[in-house]
Formats: sequence, structure tokens, C-alpha cells
Amino acid sequence: MSPAPARAAPLRLPPPLPPPPLLLLLLALPLAGGGPRYEPIWQSLDARPLPAWFDEAKLGVFIHWGVFSVPSFGSEWFWWYWQKEKREPYVKFMEANYPPGFSYEDFGPLFTAEFFDPNQWADILKASGAKYVVLTSKHHEGFTLWGSKYSWNWNAIDVGPKRDLVDELATSIRNRTDLHFGLYHSLFEWFNPLFLEDATNVFKTRKFPTSKSLPELYEIVTKYQPEIIWSDGNGNAPDTYWNSTGFLAWLYNDSPVRDTVVTNDRWGVGSICKHGGFYTCSDRYNPGHLLPHKWENCMTIDKRSWGYRRDAKLDDYLTIEDLVKQLVETVSCGGNLLMNIGPTHDGRIAVIFEERLRQMGTWLKVSGEAIYGTKPWRAQNDTVTPEVWYTFSPKGGKVYAIFFNWPISGTLALGEPQAKVGETEVRLTGHKELLKWVALGEKGMLIALPQLSLKQLPCQWGWALQLTNIN
Amino acid sequence: MSPAPARAAPLRLPPPLPPPPLLLLLLALPLAGGGPRYEPIWQSLDARPLPAWFDEAKLGVFIHWGVFSVPSFGSEWFWWYWQKEKREPYVKFMEANYPPGFSYEDFGPLFTAEFFDPNQWADILKASGAKYVVLTSKHHEGFTLWGSKYSWNWNAIDVGPKRDLVDELATSIRNRTDLHFGLYHSLFEWFNPLFLEDATNVFKTRKFPTSKSLPELYEIVTKYQPEIIWSDGNGNAPDTYWNSTGFLAWLYNDSPVRDTVVTNDRWGVGSICKHGGFYTCSDRYNPGHLLPHKWENCMTIDKRSWGYRRDAKLDDYLTIEDLVKQLVETVSCGGNLLMNIGPTHDGRIAVIFEERLRQMGTWLKVSGEAIYGTKPWRAQNDTVTPEVWYTFSPKGGKVYAIFFNWPISGTLALGEPQAKVGETEVRLTGHKELLKWVALGEKGMLIALPQLSLKQLPCQWGWALQLTNIN
Amino acid sequence: MSPAPARAAPLRLPPPLPPPPLLLLLLALPLAGGGPRYEPIWQSLDARPLPAWFDEAKLGVFIHWGVFSVPSFGSEWFWWYWQKEKREPYVKFMEANYPPGFSYEDFGPLFTAEFFDPNQWADILKASGAKYVVLTSKHHEGFTLWGSKYSWNWNAIDVGPKRDLVDELATSIRNRTDLHFGLYHSLFEWFNPLFLEDATNVFKTRKFPTSKSLPELYEIVTKYQPEIIWSDGNGNAPDTYWNSTGFLAWLYNDSPVRDTVVTNDRWGVGSICKHGGFYTCSDRYNPGHLLPHKWENCMTIDKRSWGYRRDAKLDDYLTIEDLVKQLVETVSCGGNLLMNIGPTHDGRIAVIFEERLRQMGTWLKVSGEAIYGTKPWRAQNDTVTPEVWYTFSPKGGKVYAIFFNWPISGTLALGEPQAKVGETEVRLTGHKELLKWVALGEKGMLIALPQLSLKQLPCQWGWALQLTNIN
Amino acid sequence: MSPAPARAAPLRLPPPLPPPPLLLLLLALPLAGGGPRYEPIWQSLDARPLPAWFDEAKLGVFIHWGVFSVPSFGSEWFWWYWQKEKREPYVKFMEANYPPGFSYEDFGPLFTAEFFDPNQWADILKASGAKYVVLTSKHHEGFTLWGSKYSWNWNAIDVGPKRDLVDELATSIRNRTDLHFGLYHSLFEWFNPLFLEDATNVFKTRKFPTSKSLPELYEIVTKYQPEIIWSDGNGNAPDTYWNSTGFLAWLYNDSPVRDTVVTNDRWGVGSICKHGGFYTCSDRYNPGHLLPHKWENCMTIDKRSWGYRRDAKLDDYLTIEDLVKQLVETVSCGGNLLMNIGPTHDGRIAVIFEERLRQMGTWLKVSGEAIYGTKPWRAQNDTVTPEVWYTFSPKGGKVYAIFFNWPISGTLALGEPQAKVGETEVRLTGHKELLKWVALGEKGMLIALPQLSLKQLPCQWGWALQLTNIN
Repeated sequence: MSPAPARAAPLRLPPPLPPPPLLLLLLALPLAGGGPRYEPIWQSLDARPLPAWFDEAKLGVFIHWGVFSVPSFGSEWFWWYWQKEKREPYVKFMEANYPPGFSYEDFGPLFTAEFFDPNQWADILKASGAKYVVLTSKHHEGFTLWGSKYSWNWNAIDVGPKRDLVDELATSIRNRTDLHFGLYHSLFEWFNPLFLEDATNVFKTRKFPTSKSLPELYEIVTKYQPEIIWSDGNGNAPDTYWNSTGFLAWLYNDSPVRDTVVTNDRWGVGSICKHGGFYTCSDRYNPGHLLPHKWENCMTIDKRSWGYRRDAKLDDYLTIEDLVKQLVETVSCGGNLLMNIGPTHDGRIAVIFEERLRQMGTWLKVSGEAIYGTKPWRAQNDTVTPEVWYTFSPKGGKVYAIFFNWPISGTLALGEPQAKVGETEVRLTGHKELLKWVALGEKGMLIALPQLSLKQLPCQWGWALQLTNIN
Repeated sequence: MSPAPARAAPLRLPPPLPPPPLLLLLLALPLAGGGPRYEPIWQSLDARPLPAWFDEAKLGVFIHWGVFSVPSFGSEWFWWYWQKEKREPYVKFMEANYPPGFSYEDFGPLFTAEFFDPNQWADILKASGAKYVVLTSKHHEGFTLWGSKYSWNWNAIDVGPKRDLVDELATSIRNRTDLHFGLYHSLFEWFNPLFLEDATNVFKTRKFPTSKSLPELYEIVTKYQPEIIWSDGNGNAPDTYWNSTGFLAWLYNDSPVRDTVVTNDRWGVGSICKHGGFYTCSDRYNPGHLLPHKWENCMTIDKRSWGYRRDAKLDDYLTIEDLVKQLVETVSCGGNLLMNIGPTHDGRIAVIFEERLRQMGTWLKVSGEAIYGTKPWRAQNDTVTPEVWYTFSPKGGKVYAIFFNWPISGTLALGEPQAKVGETEVRLTGHKELLKWVALGEKGMLIALPQLSLKQLPCQWGWALQLTNIN
Repeated sequence: MSPAPARAAPLRLPPPLPPPPLLLLLLALPLAGGGPRYEPIWQSLDARPLPAWFDEAKLGVFIHWGVFSVPSFGSEWFWWYWQKEKREPYVKFMEANYPPGFSYEDFGPLFTAEFFDPNQWADILKASGAKYVVLTSKHHEGFTLWGSKYSWNWNAIDVGPKRDLVDELATSIRNRTDLHFGLYHSLFEWFNPLFLEDATNVFKTRKFPTSKSLPELYEIVTKYQPEIIWSDGNGNAPDTYWNSTGFLAWLYNDSPVRDTVVTNDRWGVGSICKHGGFYTCSDRYNPGHLLPHKWENCMTIDKRSWGYRRDAKLDDYLTIEDLVKQLVETVSCGGNLLMNIGPTHDGRIAVIFEERLRQMGTWLKVSGEAIYGTKPWRAQNDTVTPEVWYTFSPKGGKVYAIFFNWPISGTLALGEPQAKVGETEVRLTGHKELLKWVALGEKGMLIALPQLSLKQLPCQWGWALQLTNIN
Repeated sequence: MSPAPARAAPLRLPPPLPPPPLLLLLLALPLAGGGPRYEPIWQSLDARPLPAWFDEAKLGVFIHWGVFSVPSFGSEWFWWYWQKEKREPYVKFMEANYPPGFSYEDFGPLFTAEFFDPNQWADILKASGAKYVVLTSKHHEGFTLWGSKYSWNWNAIDVGPKRDLVDELATSIRNRTDLHFGLYHSLFEWFNPLFLEDATNVFKTRKFPTSKSLPELYEIVTKYQPEIIWSDGNGNAPDTYWNSTGFLAWLYNDSPVRDTVVTNDRWGVGSICKHGGFYTCSDRYNPGHLLPHKWENCMTIDKRSWGYRRDAKLDDYLTIEDLVKQLVETVSCGGNLLMNIGPTHDGRIAVIFEERLRQMGTWLKVSGEAIYGTKPWRAQNDTVTPEVWYTFSPKGGKVYAIFFNWPISGTLALGEPQAKVGETEVRLTGHKELLKWVALGEKGMLIALPQLSLKQLPCQWGWALQLTNIN
């Protein structure tokens, strides 16, 4: 997964616009002398080992917040569906509720965030059991949640909240232990005229990346030191247009987060599922089998939107049972789960999202040992009882079998683990006593679950069996 | 509970302002000749039997909606707390978010209700298992959710939604079977200058009731034919000021809903818990013992507010376990539960409310036989296991024992019911097989609960045992 | 013009709703004993002599201000033209600029008046040479510019300015010497549901006048003591519906302004130009000949609207020449001129109005002696030079001949005045020297005007010749 | 005034960013071969002769319109005075009328321009007698009145009017004969973060001009082909920072308006009154004596603001007498007058401005021959009667003496012109007959003005005497 980078890499300066502060360069020099440096080519960049914290974290919360949270209707792609595709529900919604000529930009001042309390958000996020948070610093609408110099009058300091939302959340997140802070960033912007001009020129001009997207990427890294750069939205342009490799080389070699930062794979046409840090492959990616490269399943609690939408009904929200299952399957197959919520225009996490997050935290308090820091086991799900999924904890060599249906018989049949009589021990996480079991040789084993009333169950929605000294 | 009303009650005309439409009077005459008529005195009015549907219904949903749903901060008493009591959080909220001089009236146009879909609401309300719905036709702010002639420019047709919210919801509710429609109505209005003038005159003048509250009461009854008039807010004035008895006499004798309408007990200083229809006594009234008069426990899912408030957290919402317990206790003691939700200014039932309502409906689908149409039993809660509550179904003489903690031992000890060997049968509602039990004579009985996995449980949050042929 | 009122008028109480404060009644008793009292019948009321100040004042400024000043488009009849008549320009204006469902009431909060400085207004009004001001306390829209108890949430204290505009302007006007304050008041209200109900009942019910228009009339008289009640808008109802005679009897007998108040003639169908105080007969009434009853020409500087409208062009405003001519003709024929301006929604008198008002004041500073306190002369305009108009000053028996075209010949021929050689003196107001003239016997006289350069002219736009000792 | 430009100027390409469209370059080549080309140095650029139309035009109307027209309070420098200087009236105005946190950007959506009718504007502008119009395409606030690609979400297409105000006005202006269209453009922008960054770097970086101001200058020239570029606002940066000479060389050599365009002198610190096209030197510049270089007096009808402000009173507006005097003095001394108006946020020219403009047009209809196309005479104002100002018409060698005070004596004494008996003729413009005069040799001449009544005067506010055959 991580061959050593090319030796004797020549000292490569970061791209000229904007220059990394001189001080950082100077600080970087000794390190550059001592360690490998990455070249701005995929071969070199892809060879960088993923910082370990990311694989251990397993669960992150994705936050889609922006001007789209003001109409909060249909989708965070509101602007596009309304103005470009002219989808009927969007057009009608605008006609029914706004004066003629009302533009998407007019939603800006209505993005008020008056209830935004970053400490309260951080408490909820922490309580969810997530180990990292990824905030949309800028979505395809181009509105930056920080006061970008390169997005004058279309950012959260100048318009709407009049607050640096990125900075405030970053600070609160970092005041909680064991919670990493990352930033989503859209490369392209649907309606930015400079991007559209470049697109018309088949990306032979590069006005947009040089004056907007690249300066902003340097800006957010330097100002907020995010540990994840979650890139998105290539706008059908190749990574050469975006100069993604140039940016990543700077990020890995010289940026203030060069040691800990993690990136994803959305850096230009063709890079997804192929280049960069962890792979996201597609939205809601959940392959169901082990992958050779670290990956992430980014998905939404509201099944149909990433941004908050007022037209979502209870039925549109995944249940906690659904969510626990997603997490377990994803982790079994080597992925991380990035579970999305969409805050409201006035700065609240809707109570239904808070409930799902806290439910997840409740479950992880009992079952977290089967999730955090684990590695995929030799099998992902069971052959006999396929809805049972496995994880493996290197500390103590424990195998976890996680199941969602408590068998009526009280006995769980597993085809994969081969128990060793006198050695193997089976526990239900959150339950004190050892469980009884019967080895079936190559056919696996049978485990007798305890008789527990509803209140005695250590958790609902899924249970983890810890198997020690097992083959 | 219902002595016969005084005979030969003289024909009493309704109060002069406004006259009930002549046609209705004429229609009423033959009936008046045939049945008893009520005099506008408490002695006569209190003697009216409560229409039977109400006691059978057991569960209603209360809906607090109005201009207070626009700030949706703190409480539906927002106007009062802010302008009259000048409570700090309210004053600060306004100072921080609105221009100087912004008045409560300025919230009116922002009460947009663009997402209000009465059919969707009715589906949710129906799914909750409730048998009636009570909507705030007008709260203390004086804003009428219908286009009142007596509240020009301060009603939902002229300002804000531009829709007759009362009419739309009434129609949708009535299109569902087995769902009654009632209206809450506040007698006084915090800041109505005519009310304030009367109050200054120690209620010796009656400008306000004659020009506002009484005409509106006649208006809503005539236009919307509500089956509940849920009166509130006496403003420290006696029922004589409000002419409550005059109105009730008309309501019971001559109104279009005279046969089915139910009223409560909030008709002037001193009438609460003493006069009128069912007793409400106080908000969140839940005495824990049997009452000789039909009563209602009106309470809120959001523990601290009747109106929607954006500052409510998950912890502020009662859990479904809390709610089921409230329902059971209330019904055991002879009350109805009126469970409140607060919709948003844009016409939505927040998803967390939808979840609670649907959870209640799920529970009632299994356990409803222990609730609907029942009567209090000779005991309310058990002597041996006090958290067990009883109801009694006259059809078939079934006693229901409802418990919330599934005993770890698998055996439930009941002190009250005296089983008859060979006759008594015990069932768990939602479960097919008969349960085994042991009679302990005067000390009650022991019941062996079945061993059920989580998925086998017919419901969560509470279980009802049906006991037949029991003493 | 003013026969003595009927003697020994029995003590008549004012109409029952609302009662005049007891104290005022008591104060009124001794006076009632000493002077004549008016009966609530036209015969008696019409006999009241007009308080002298009004005829002497000659020029007033009319101010149309209200919620119609917010759209300030087309006319102060905006609401009616848009919603009732559905005139195309109004409907299109709303469709083009406001969201669907935007109502007239929604304009209320936009009536901000933040630039309203009553002292600055009073300075301009004073500078115009006007001797009285009439403000629309309430136009047909029903919105009261004071905090009426009977117009809750549709008045300038509760909605929009959050200020008592009537009180503020009254105070500032009264702080200037020789300026009277009057109030316009519309009896009917286009869309008030109580009025519409009465109208449907062919005015056989009287809900609206008893609960709205009459209480408000008593309220403004008692609170603001206006010296003019300028009634308008009978809504096709007779004075008996409005109980106009009852109100006027109270106003003349017992109100705090009984000695000085002046009223007009718009008190119900059939009363205009026939009953009440001075006659207005029709908008922009200017008969061109002497009338036997005191009258007033109410007209507008903006030719096509009383309320401010943003779509007015320079050409829509009368020039100062037009206005001076209107004033002179009106005064010659025994009328007063009430010249209207429409302030803006944010409380300003548009500069073009300020210019016209100050121009009028400039002219009156020179020519005011030919206007204020004058009476009609035996002739109104001249027989030989018809565009010359006459007034007569009882003090010193001066006749004024006012002309608008300075004759090229330098000689003005007048057919009416008969000069007396050796006695008659002719002066040009604002010019020191006596003018020369020649008597033509019964054919009048010729007057030699002085040779004056533009800067020497005492005023522009019209000149007054003062003739003393003339027949 | 216009030495020939340096010969054999080498072919200079325009600055690289943005490139002028290739097509234009090609079109320019043949011309470049035939005529002189300007080098991007002041020596060369300053040598360009001013296109003749400008000096002949004499009168232009300046239009300051932008987001500052929304608060329309105090000054078009509202943003700066409020946020940067924190002047008390501005801070208080915002505190009193807007919620906390309201930003200048929030005014953008309120710039509605719904009454903007470019044809009506053009009619008024044409009627004023002006021969050119200069519109603020972008003021220091940075908001572009056209849909600039380089000012995304801060321009009139995206925010506010949703119309291309520059294009609409340009089209209407050009549909009137003899009316030129020019554009004001501010180099710097008060609060643009890229400009502020460059300023912090003492203008050693040039992010702002390369990404904003220069691209925009090329954009407006290419799209709207203005005949005046009225540059302003150097932000204390030198012309080298702005690359003004590079832009001007392109403008003069290769732009579509290279033959007719006129520029001013505000191109960087030190350029004012020294480099560029005509000189403006300072706002309201009116030296009172002849200058050797073509200059312009840009001034405002509202004495204290260029943008519309609601707090202006009649007294704040110059009278037509003031304005005529300004025009005459300016033209006498070789300048043009650029007379400013400020339209409202909703797209209107306030009626007082319309009046002043039409008054000026009325005066010019009579006296225009003394203004348009004239040259300064040997004397500017008279020695004997100093308030008399001279112009000279090359066609027919006429001298015009313009005076503002009609002498009471009827005789005007002039010290400068030396009449030739039998040859010299004197006329009053707008009056048919020749005037009589007396020559006083070297002491000038006396002119007998005709006796004219007010209506006979050909115009008011100033009169021009045409002297032919005079020395």
C-alpha cells in the first residue's frame, strides 16, 4: 500500500500563486532534508502513506452547510436544478414564494446562523462517537464559509452569518479530545463566470483555478490547518487544469499539516477511485467486499439530500438500525463511514439529526471496541449467517462478529471462525459473562446467546461478539 | 355525573351580539321543544352529559400554531415575556436579530406556512392513534387562524399565510375516519387595547367580549362546527364578564354542534376544575388517582413550550417511553391525554414530532385495545408492582394491566387482580399464546411472561396484559 | 348665513358609544347652560356660525399619508384599484415586484417613516404661507396614523412607524404661530369586513359605525383636539347610518374644540354641498363665481394623485404659476384653497413639493395682504381683463386686483373699479411708489405699471394692485 | 496642445491579461500600419490630440448610481464613512434602522431599480441640453452596474436590479442624436481584500489590478464602447501599479473606440491635472481663469453628495441660476461642465433633478449658441462688469457676453470689447431686434438693453449678447 517514495527528490517549490508564507518554507527545509519529498506527479503522491489516525477513526460526520440551507428545499443542488436544469418542483417553489427576479444570490443575506453554537454542535458531534468532522468550506455554489479573500462578497463574513463559520467550528471541534477537523472543498463552481469561460475554452485557459480555487485551497490550509482535505467537483476538467498534483505536493511537503493531513481522490476527471489519499469512488459507495485501498463510504442520514431540506419526512431519514448496519458493513470491508447531516440556515442541527447522532454514540459506547482501531478480518461477512460481519482488533488478536438479528432460538451459527476448545473465549460486548459455544470444526461454531430482557440488552440495533484465541 | 337538567326550561335566546343566524334558530325550535334546554347558569349547564365519543377517544393531539411560531424562540408566550415581562433572553434575542422598533406585529407577514399540507398533517395525526385534534384557532396574541371578521388585519387570511388554516385542517381531519376536530380559543388577548381598557375598569365595562371574543366564538362554531371548544385564558376576569354561560347555553341548545360538542372548564376566574365540560384543572394535570369527573391531561412533547421553538434540544423532548407512560397513567385514572405539538412558521411538523406521533401510533396499534373505549378499573395502579396500571374494557369485561419494565425474572407479580382457576385467561396483547399464571388468592397472582427476542416483542415501551374472567 | 340656533335646546347627551369622558361632560354643563346647544338634526347643526379663523386663513395644506405611501404607485386608491377593480397597471406592478400572495397589509411594516421630522415639516408648512394643515388621520384603507384603540394592529403605533404620527405633527404645528391643525377622517373603509357586512345588509345593521368609525372620531377629537374635522368617504351610506348628526352635536356642544372646530360637508349620502360646515362639493372644486356659503377648493400639486407616487414626472406637478392662479381665483370667489402634498413612506416631503410650498410662501410674503383676511368683492374677475381677479380687505376698505400677465404695454385696463380722482390710490404690493392711473368713468380705469427689471419685480407669478378709496 | 506623437512607434501588444480579442487585434493592424501608435508611456500618450467632439460638447451629465443609492443617506461614500471612519451620523442611522450585523452587502438585494426606464432617462438627459452622459459603471464600492465576469455576485445582473444597467442606458442614450455615452470607473475598491492585501504590501504585489480592475476596464470598453473613460480612485497607488499607461495605449491604439474615446487624468498618484486626456484636477474644479489644457468641472446639483441622498433639503440643491452661472464661467475658461445627478435605488431621477435638467435645457435652447462649439475668447470675464463672461464662436467670429444681472438702468457697460462703428452689431440671443450701443474706445462700450416684460424675456437666469465685428 505504501512503497517508499522516490529517493533524492529534488527540492520542489510550491506553485507560485499564492506563495506559502516564507516562515513555513524555512521551517520545512530541515525536514525536507531529512525526509522524502513528494513530486507533483501522481506516481509520487500516491505513494504517500495514509496517516494512521484516519483508518483508526472509522466514523466521521459530514456537514453540508451553505446558502442552499436557506431555501432548504429539495437538495443542496438547488441552484443548479432551479436555474440550469429548470426542474419543475424548483421552478414552482420559487414562483410560488418569491418575487420575480429573485436570484440565488438573494438567499445569501438570509443565511443568518443566529442559533449557531459551535460548542453545542461539537458536543453533539462528540457524543455521536465520530472521530472526525468534515465541513463544506465551500460547495459548488462558491460561497465560502470563511472570509475568503478570493470570494469577496460571497462568503460568510461579508454576507449572511457575518461570522467565520470554519474558524468557529474548527476551534470547538479541537477543544474536544479525539476529534479531527477536516474541510470539504469544491474545485469547480457551477456559475462562476471565470470557470464558465475556462470551460468554454475547453480548459485551455486557467483563469478560474489560478484566481479562485487554488488560492482558496492554500488559504484554508494555512488558516485552518484541516486534517482532511475532502476535494470534490472536478467540473469535468482534468487534474492538470486544477493543478491538483502541485497543490498536493505542497500540502504533503510544506504545508503546516503535512504530517497528519489526509486527502481523498476527487482531484480531476479520472482521479476518482484511482489517485490521491483514501478512495471515495462514488457517493454512498459501499462495495460489500474488501478493497485493497483505504476507502470511505460517504452517505446521508436524509436519504435524498446532503443539505438540509424542509420537505424531508420521517420516512426519508434512515433509522438508527440502518445506520448501524452501514457502519458495520463499511468497517468490515476496510472503509470509513462519513455520515452526513445538514444544518439549518439559522444554525441548528435539527433534532432528528441530533437523535440519530446520539443514538449512534450510544451504540458505539457499548460496541466501539468492535469498530475503532480495527482492521478487516480474513472474512468480511459470514458464510452461514451472511448478515453477520467481522472486524479484527490487532490488540489482543480479537475477532468481532457483529449481528443485527437476535436469533429466536438463542443460538447463533457462524461458519467462518474456527474455535479452539479450551482457548477460545466468546463475549457479548457490554455483557459481563462469558458465552457458551460449540465448535463445529471447519464448519465453524455455534454460540449460545444469553437470555436478556429488553432492559438487560447492552444495546439495541446490533450486537458484537468478541472472539479471542480463534482461528 | 349527569343529573337531569331542570325541566321546562324557558326558551332562552342566545345573547344579542351577534345573533345566531335566523335559520339555525328556526331549525333549533322543534328540537328545543322535544328535548331539555339549558339555562345560562352553571347549575343547568354543568348537568349536561358529556357526549360519549370524548371519553372513548382517550388520545388527542393539541396543536399550538400562530404568529409565535415565527420567532419560535423560548415559548409561545414570546410576546408577553419580551414586551411585558422584559425577560432577558427574549429582549436580547430581539436586540441581536431585529432592527430597533421591530414589533411583534411585524412577525405577522413572516408567518408564511408555505409548506403547510393539511392532508399530510392529517395523515400523521391519524397515524398517531389520536382520535381528536385541537387546534389553536386563536391564542393570547389575538391572531386568528381563520379570516375572522372581528380581527381585521390580524388573521391568517389578511396577514401571513393568506389561507384559512382552520378550514383547511378541519376539512382534512374530517376526511379521515374516526378523527374529531376541536378548536382552542383564548378568551383574553394580552395586548388588545379594548381588553386592557376593560381590565383597567375592573371589568365593569365589556367592550372586549361584546366586540371581539364573543362574536368570534359564535363565528368559529357556526363556520367550522368544532366538536371541542377548548377555552382558555380568562385574563383574571369572571365568567360573567365573558358571558360564558350565555355562550354555552347557545352552544348546547341551538348551535349546529349542540349534540356532539364537548367543552372544557376554562370559562372565567373560578370555573376551572369546577364548571363546564371535562376538567383540565391545570396544564400537564395528571393526578395519579381516579377523579369523579371526566378530565384531560394536556401536556407537551417539548417539555418546556407549547409553541415550536428553535432552541429546543433533543433532551427537551419527551421520549416515546415517557409519552406511553403518560397516556397509560392518564387513561387508568379516567383522563384523556391531549399531547401537544408545535408546527413551524412555514407549516411543517418537525420530524422529531412526526417520529413521536408515529411511535405512539405504532404502540397503539398493538395496545390500543387496552386504551380506547376503556373505563377506569376498581384499582388504578397495582399494590405489589405499583408501576403497573389498569384499565377496564366493558366489552367482554376485560381488565388490562399495563407494565413498562419487563421483569428480568420473566414473572410479573400483581397484587390487585384475583384470578379464578379454570376461568381466568391472560394474554399479552399482540402475542398469540395464552400466558401461564398462578393465583395467590387475595394476594393476587403471578404471571409468566413469554421468552421473546427483541424482534418478537409485539411492541416496545410498554405491554398490556389482557385478563379475562377476573375479579 | 348663520341664523341663531333653536333656543332652549334640551340637554342632549352624546351618543352612547363611546361615552365622552365624564369630566368633560361636567365641564360642559355650565357652558351648556350659558350658550345655545345644537340638536342632532341638520336644521340645527347647519345653523352654527363657522368659526371666523377659517375664512381668514384662506390657504391650507392637505397631507395624504398612509400605507398607500409604501407602494406609492399610481394613486392613494392603490388597494382598491389593485384588488377590487383589478386595474392592469396595478396588478402588473404587484406581479412584477412582489411574491405571489403579497397583500396590502404586508405593506404595513414597510411604512417606516424613519426620516419623519415633524419640526422640519412644520417649518416647511409654515414657510408656505398656509394657515392650516389637514392630515389624513385615516384614509379609506382604515390604517390610523395614531394608535387607535379601535384599529388594533392596523395603526402607526403597532405597525410600521411605531410612532404616533398625528400627535407628533400636531405638536410641531402648534408650536408655530398662526397655524391650525385639522384632521381628515374617512368614514368608510374599503375592505373592513364589518363595513362590508353592513353594506350587504343595506346599512340596516350598524356594526361598523358603532365599533369603529364613531369611537375613532370621538377618540381623535378628545386626544388631538383638531380644529378641522375633514370628513370623507360615506361609502354610499346615509348620514343616519353614520350618526353624523349625533357626532356633530357632541362636537359642537360638548367637545373640547366646540368653540373653534370647523367641519366640512361630507357626512353621508346627500350631505355634500348641502350640510355641515364649509362646502367642498367635489374634489378640485373651483366654481369660478361667488358662492353664498363658505367653501373650500381641495386640490393636489401632483395633478393625478393625492398620495405620493413614484411614477409622477415633472410634468405631472402643477407649476407655481398654476398654483398661485388657483389660490387667487379661489379666494376671489370666497373659497379657501387646500393644496395637497403626499409625503413618502420614509417620512419625507419630496423636494419638488418643498419647492412649490416655499415658492407659494415667497409669493404670499409679498402678496399676502391681498389674500389673508379678505372677503370677496362685488366683482370676482374683471370684465375688461378677465384674468384679473379681485379681493376686498375690510380693514381700510382696500380692493385688490390681482393679475398674472404683465401687459407688454405697461398699462393695465380694469373695467370694474371706479376710481375717484384725488382720492383713489393705487399701489403694487411690494413696490413702494404710488402708481399713476386714469379714470374712465363707468368704463373703469387704466393703470400705469412701473418699469421694473426682473430683479426689481417684488414677486413673480402674479401681482396684486391695492386700490384704496375706490368704488 | 497636441504635438505629433513619436514616430515609428514599435508595435506594442496590449498587456497580457486579459488579451484583447484576437479579431480586434487583426482589425487594428492595418490601421496601426497607417497611423501613429502610442507607447505605454506618458510622454507618448499625453501627445494624443483630444477628439474634437468633447470640447464642442461643453455640457455633460454625470450619474452616480450604485448600491449607495439604497441607504441614500449622507453621501455615496456611505460605506467608508460608516464602516471605516465610523462617523456618528452613519453609525446611528444604521443602528436605528437595521438589525445588528447588517452589512453594506445586504443593501445589494435592495437595489431594485424597478422604475428604471432608460428611455425616459434619455429623454430627460437629452432635454437638459447636455451632449454627453457619464455613468458610474463601478464606484469605490466595487459593485459593477454591468454583469462583470470579474465581480461575480457583486454586480447588477446577479444582485439587485438583475439588469445590465450599463447596456440599457447606453442603448437609450445612443438612440438620441448628438448624445455621447461615457463610463466612470473606479480603479480602487475601498474594501476589496485583494486591493487591501496589495496596499499592505505597499503595492509591490499586483493581485488586484491583474485580477479585477484591468480585466474590468477591458471588459467595459469591449462590451459597451464608451466614448469617455472617466477614471477615478487611485487608492494612493501609482499608475505603474494600475498599469494605466498599458491600458491607455491599448485604448488609443487598438480598442474599438480608439478614434473617438476621451479620457480624464485620474490614473494613479501624481497623474491628476498632469497626464491623460482632459484635466479634472479636483472635484468641483472651477479655476476662474483660462487653462492651457482642456479641463472639466465636475460638480453636483446636490451641493453635498454625488449619490442620491434622502436627507437633502431644497436648500441643498443648487438653483438654476447657480447652475447657469457655473456653466457659463466654466465654458468661458475653456472647461466643460459635468453636472451630476444621483438616481434613486428604485431607478428614478427625482423630480427636482428633472426640473433642474429641463430648466438648463430651456436656457440652452435660447442661449446654446453662446455655449456649444465655442472657444475661450481673449478675455474671460469683463473688467468693468466682472460678472459678465465671454465666449467666442469661431463660426462668424462672434463674441458672446453673458450676464446674469439685468441692469436697472437698462444699460450694460462692457470694458473688454472694442466696437467698430458701423460694423459691430449687438444682439440679445432669443430677441429679434438689434440693440443700440455706444463705443467708448479703449474703455469698451455701453449697450442699451431692450425694455422687456417678464414674458417677453427670451429666457431667465442669464442672457447672452452676441457681438459681431468686434475687436
